[in-house]
Amino acid sequence: MKGLKEKIIGLADEDLLSIETALKKNLITYLDLVSDVAGHILFAGGKRFRPFLMVLSARICGYTGEYDKTFSVIFEYLHTATLLHDDLVDDATIRRGKAAANTVYGNAEAVLVGDFLLARSLSIAVRTGKIEVIEAIGEITEDMSQGEIHQLIGKGNLNLTEEEYMDVIRRKTAALIMGACKCGALIAEAGKEKASILSTYGYNLGMAFQMTDDLLDYTSDTGTLGKAVGADLKEGKLTLPVIHSLKNAGPADRKKMEAVIKNSEFSIDEFDILKGMLEKYGGISYTESLAADHVAKAKEALSAFKPTETRDLMMMLADYSVNRES
Amino acid sequence: MKGLKEKIIGLADEDLLSIETALKKNLITYLDLVSDVAGHILFAGGKRFRPFLMVLSARICGYTGEYDKTFSVIFEYLHTATLLHDDLVDDATIRRGKAAANTVYGNAEAVLVGDFLLARSLSIAVRTGKIEVIEAIGEITEDMSQGEIHQLIGKGNLNLTEEEYMDVIRRKTAALIMGACKCGALIAEAGKEKASILSTYGYNLGMAFQMTDDLLDYTSDTGTLGKAVGADLKEGKLTLPVIHSLKNAGPADRKKMEAVIKNSEFSIDEFDILKGMLEKYGGISYTESLAADHVAKAKEALSAFKPTETRDLMMMLADYSVNRES
Repeated sequence: MKGLKEKIIGLADEDLLSIETALKKNLITYLDLVSDVAGHILFAGGKRFRPFLMVLSARICGYTGEYDKTFSVIFEYLHTATLLHDDLVDDATIRRGKAAANTVYGNAEAVLVGDFLLARSLSIAVRTGKIEVIEAIGEITEDMSQGEIHQLIGKGNLNLTEEEYMDVIRRKTAALIMGACKCGALIAEAGKEKASILSTYGYNLGMAFQMTDDLLDYTSDTGTLGKAVGADLKEGKLTLPVIHSLKNAGPADRKKMEAVIKNSEFSIDEFDILKGMLEKYGGISYTESLAADHVAKAKEALSAFKPTETRDLMMMLADYSVNRES
Repeated sequence: MKGLKEKIIGLADEDLLSIETALKKNLITYLDLVSDVAGHILFAGGKRFRPFLMVLSARICGYTGEYDKTFSVIFEYLHTATLLHDDLVDDATIRRGKAAANTVYGNAEAVLVGDFLLARSLSIAVRTGKIEVIEAIGEITEDMSQGEIHQLIGKGNLNLTEEEYMDVIRRKTAALIMGACKCGALIAEAGKEKASILSTYGYNLGMAFQMTDDLLDYTSDTGTLGKAVGADLKEGKLTLPVIHSLKNAGPADRKKMEAVIKNSEFSIDEFDILKGMLEKYGGISYTESLAADHVAKAKEALSAFKPTETRDLMMMLADYSVNRES
């Protein structure tokens, strides 16, 4: 599916350039450290998935104004703020193929610049003058922090359920992507029905996106991924491929899996054993199939809009959320 | 001035109880860890200075509604969020006489629960339905994070100027207290003039409050203060008493002071030498006199309101901001 990415980038080129400009312009502060720390991660090859979805969502609702790019940065800043804080929370060392900001600049810097980005997101949201947009940002930030906290609490819990996993990824990932799409409709003043359709699209796309992220941690390699493969397991973070396989494994195999999970210093061979179990007990295919269901639902929601180039592109983005290498 | 505190508490009793209830009620989430971590610091004897100021500011503008207590918690949550993050930033070990939350629960927990409190503050601000309140919250959070970052950058800088110090404390402390007072007026729909008067009151009170905090770090003791005395210096954080004394000291004494400042492992004797220099070169008295000026300006602003019990109490709070032991 490599062609899909190129096709999307070809169609998205102009928008992505404008988003890039807006991301730089709205980051200005009197403190160089903010631009340095935020820029370290913000301009390290992010996909701009969230702001782009907001722009497209506004466009599919007929928005032709000038402020979509400006407001779209809210969602990249919020995303970046959580990355800065999460890398600290997870003791991550690599992000987007570079040393994680906290390891380069320090934990204090990562925390405070993350806080700044949260604050700047809010300030930009206020500039929309729309209380529903600001309300959505409030809900998203609450969801994201609660999702991260729930995930943190669940670390090392071998009995984490699929339901808990779904709740965590809904909050930590889908809420923001859903919010970006919804806010596109709100900025376009498109009415409740369209906002609801785009929320459904964004929610499902977000769920599929995170499931794919969690799959890539087992199926990709560090070079391609831009962060350490197997990192989730090293942190004791159980995701759906593991949760599902643990549930279906017999006692002997479950014991083998648990041994790897409990040992944060597992070897490559041990990691390969675990990956074998994920194949054997369907954890990979089950997660893939749930992600595919979400993509189908996202596209189905979108079919309420009449066919346009924008709709095509949004359909492609739904496909891309599960067919990507990083 | 010990009588002042008791007098204030006597008059404030009922309000403080309602604020306490609101602080508990609005913290509810489905995650126990949030209540535990936030509660660890939130219910450890905080003065509730900021929410109380918002309540009084609303009242002095004639507000008689029911929502002032609910909305006032915004300012305590914001304050608590920054305490959680700052203790991590500063590697603090004690806060409000207890082990700092990050040392009890971990850095990850402190960061994420701080994020949650920021998010919850925003959500409550949205519930006011007033875009000016939300705008103020956006400005406050931007200011606070930039103030903290500026302070972090300045750590160990022996040439930090008084102007930079003023800018840092304005952002990190005065902005929130000013915002609490301003939002009281906004909630009371009291008009621009009263909002501006209360902003002036809050700004000056906030500046005096932080200068006093910085003085207490040299003049109090750990037991009374509930956090480590001399902590600022240990972290390389130069505050006005030191900045002013360094500027006025002759080369030999400056050298002695610098030796203590540069050595984060300074002994009690060395700390006493430095304190002697702060007396000798007027750093203590200069800071006290600037703080007193700010208190005078705060009270002067307030004199635009007609004399009432509320105004008396707010005058007392201005005095209290500099006449306190912790």
